Amino acid sequence: MEGTAHLVEVGHFFYILIVIMLAAKLAGELFERLGQPAVLGELVAGVIVGTSVLGIVPTDPGDPYGSIVHIMAEIGVAILLFEIGLETDLREMFRVGSAALTVAVVGVVLPFFFGYLFWHMYQGGASLVAIFVGATLTATSVGITARVLTDIGKINTSEARIIIGAAVIDDILGLLILAVVEGLADTGHVSVLGVLELFGLAVGFLAAAMAIGLTTARWLFELVNRMRVRGVLVTVALVFALLLAYLADLVGLAPIVGAFAAGLILSRTNQFDTIVEQIKPVADVFTPLFFVSIGAAVDIAILDPRNPANHEILIIGGALFMIAVLGKVVAGFSVFWRKLNRLAIGAGMVPRGEVGLIFAQLGLLGGILTQDVFSAILIMVMGTTLITPPLLKPLFNRTTPENDIDRPRAAHPGMTELE
Amino acid sequence: MEGTAHLVEVGHFFYILIVIMLAAKLAGELFERLGQPAVLGELVAGVIVGTSVLGIVPTDPGDPYGSIVHIMAEIGVAILLFEIGLETDLREMFRVGSAALTVAVVGVVLPFFFGYLFWHMYQGGASLVAIFVGATLTATSVGITARVLTDIGKINTSEARIIIGAAVIDDILGLLILAVVEGLADTGHVSVLGVLELFGLAVGFLAAAMAIGLTTARWLFELVNRMRVRGVLVTVALVFALLLAYLADLVGLAPIVGAFAAGLILSRTNQFDTIVEQIKPVADVFTPLFFVSIGAAVDIAILDPRNPANHEILIIGGALFMIAVLGKVVAGFSVFWRKLNRLAIGAGMVPRGEVGLIFAQLGLLGGILTQDVFSAILIMVMGTTLITPPLLKPLFNRTTPENDIDRPRAAHPGMTELE
Repeated sequence: MEGTAHLVEVGHFFYILIVIMLAAKLAGELFERLGQPAVLGELVAGVIVGTSVLGIVPTDPGDPYGSIVHIMAEIGVAILLFEIGLETDLREMFRVGSAALTVAVVGVVLPFFFGYLFWHMYQGGASLVAIFVGATLTATSVGITARVLTDIGKINTSEARIIIGAAVIDDILGLLILAVVEGLADTGHVSVLGVLELFGLAVGFLAAAMAIGLTTARWLFELVNRMRVRGVLVTVALVFALLLAYLADLVGLAPIVGAFAAGLILSRTNQFDTIVEQIKPVADVFTPLFFVSIGAAVDIAILDPRNPANHEILIIGGALFMIAVLGKVVAGFSVFWRKLNRLAIGAGMVPRGEVGLIFAQLGLLGGILTQDVFSAILIMVMGTTLITPPLLKPLFNRTTPENDIDRPRAAHPGMTELE
Repeated sequence: MEGTAHLVEVGHFFYILIVIMLAAKLAGELFERLGQPAVLGELVAGVIVGTSVLGIVPTDPGDPYGSIVHIMAEIGVAILLFEIGLETDLREMFRVGSAALTVAVVGVVLPFFFGYLFWHMYQGGASLVAIFVGATLTATSVGITARVLTDIGKINTSEARIIIGAAVIDDILGLLILAVVEGLADTGHVSVLGVLELFGLAVGFLAAAMAIGLTTARWLFELVNRMRVRGVLVTVALVFALLLAYLADLVGLAPIVGAFAAGLILSRTNQFDTIVEQIKPVADVFTPLFFVSIGAAVDIAILDPRNPANHEILIIGGALFMIAVLGKVVAGFSVFWRKLNRLAIGAGMVPRGEVGLIFAQLGLLGGILTQDVFSAILIMVMGTTLITPPLLKPLFNRTTPENDIDRPRAAHPGMTELE
């Protein structure tokens, strides 16, 4: 009730929201009818309404409207991973633990090594730059894959669980690489003790969250059951997801790792069915914001080969893209001891996202990477993001959800959508 | 995917959201158990987590975090009015049309006249200031009342329909007063033609929206029924609400008037049940943000009588508060020709909100109102907001929902809340 100026106008933000939601659903529908995952439609819709073409949806988090889109998008991807955690069986996740660890480690080491090697051979000298380039290629951004596998009904396969498990481990490894890379950028050397401390903190957080969560969640939701106020179940479930996301962020992990853990924990409560049923419409509102805003941030101008200034960027970007894809595909094949769709696993690990961009930005701000290399990394991230949805669908056609084939979900009376 | 600075940190915003949601539900539960509407708990929770006490929830829309809270709160109140529109019978609204019109007109004229008179007698001279003071007392802010009546299950009474109808008309009248007041502040005189144009635009918009909406909504949702992509129904319903809110904002009305109209229109579609069922969890997530942020913006320091600087503010604020309450209560009694709970109607019209504050801010920026008068108006707004919830519950005890007593709602399997 203060008398100050408004950073944003409500009406204009409503307009942005309307455009995002309509574009997401129309393009999602179109792509689904073309046999593609809906999320690819949302990404393409984002490109059209975003920076490159129509310029309606701002994505710069330094802009007042962009920062709201950014925050709501982050809420969206957190709810998505929360929902996926809810529908994931914890015992099944443990069963694929060793496979996920292998995929994660190989999928971090290979792209890093080949990224380093490529830069060393291409430009020579300056190994610090090569380390940064390698680092940007390591961490999988699981949002895209998770959404595609949900779209096509393959989230309950062993392959999907390995991908998600590996992505969580990836995030921990990414955290360590970030510490190393930050140390190199700031002081030129690395504190081994500091890196180990971070590792302990991240693993300790996840272990503690799961242990405390699994023992207290039932009790907490018994309490919720006795509350009378409207909307308490969906609110407490969402608060739980946001709280673990927030704590994950505090220890340096991606918020979505915490949100996923929250889902895993709540999948063991008695109110599981109602939580899933009520969180779905909330996810439907927020999630497209994430994928549309990823598309909206794509700057297709740097892809234009008619501009000679883009040539070197395109060459480096193309090379990094190849390394990014091949590194993860080979990682998928590293699970040699189990009969699995290994190619599908590797493809699911391909998308790179925010973690790589954070590394690139650190390097840019620290004066280690040039603007051209930064743009090449952007091309790699954009490419891996856009290539994954159309690849995953045919690759996953040969896999079948093995356990809990359609775990009894809450019935949706009058539900008009086909899922 | 740009490399710019972030205005807001995701983790910190998650923390703010967690605090808002938890405080809302805990205080809501407490107040409900004390026999008060949950929304009063949310307002009080807002005071505690907001500016005055803990300072966790920012409300200044000029602050990056505050602007996000503000926008999500506005989405929340729009969804609330959309939901109320969905559950309102259009024919019943028309049946109370003349009563609503009477309550609105009397409830605007009386507070304006007595506010003007008070200032004239208290300070003398300067009739422009008196006009501004009167104007700030006119428009009802329907969010609080609508939420209380939903909380206590009285939203389907004739009295509730009269209040909501009168609030919609109030908003149109407020728009005209705003045009007059803006003209006075800017140029010192008023364009009658301009005011009539605005009036025509607002009434025309509402009439056109209802007419077009009612004829196309069924057809639109038949189309939606044939779409396959997930979440399309809740998204299209929300887009419809936001679109009408946006258009209302464009013609100068409050966005919630458009959202309410959208709800009225969609209440006639075949998918009504599913829309209500799916919009509820979304409302549960967003709506408390509105009420907590209202409470959070309250600055209790200006209420401290130990500070001599507050004395005159408190006296003027107290007088304005009395005029604000009495003006609307008398307006409730103006529906003399129908057997109704007239006192309840008047009490439901008491809350003042954003419209009054907009007037006050215009006056402050135009150099017509002093900071002290502005603070006194704030006291009036705060007082009317906080006094309404505890008043409405006992007053509405004597009314019963008359028609469609619990219109068949979508069953909520496993729903754990009592409503």
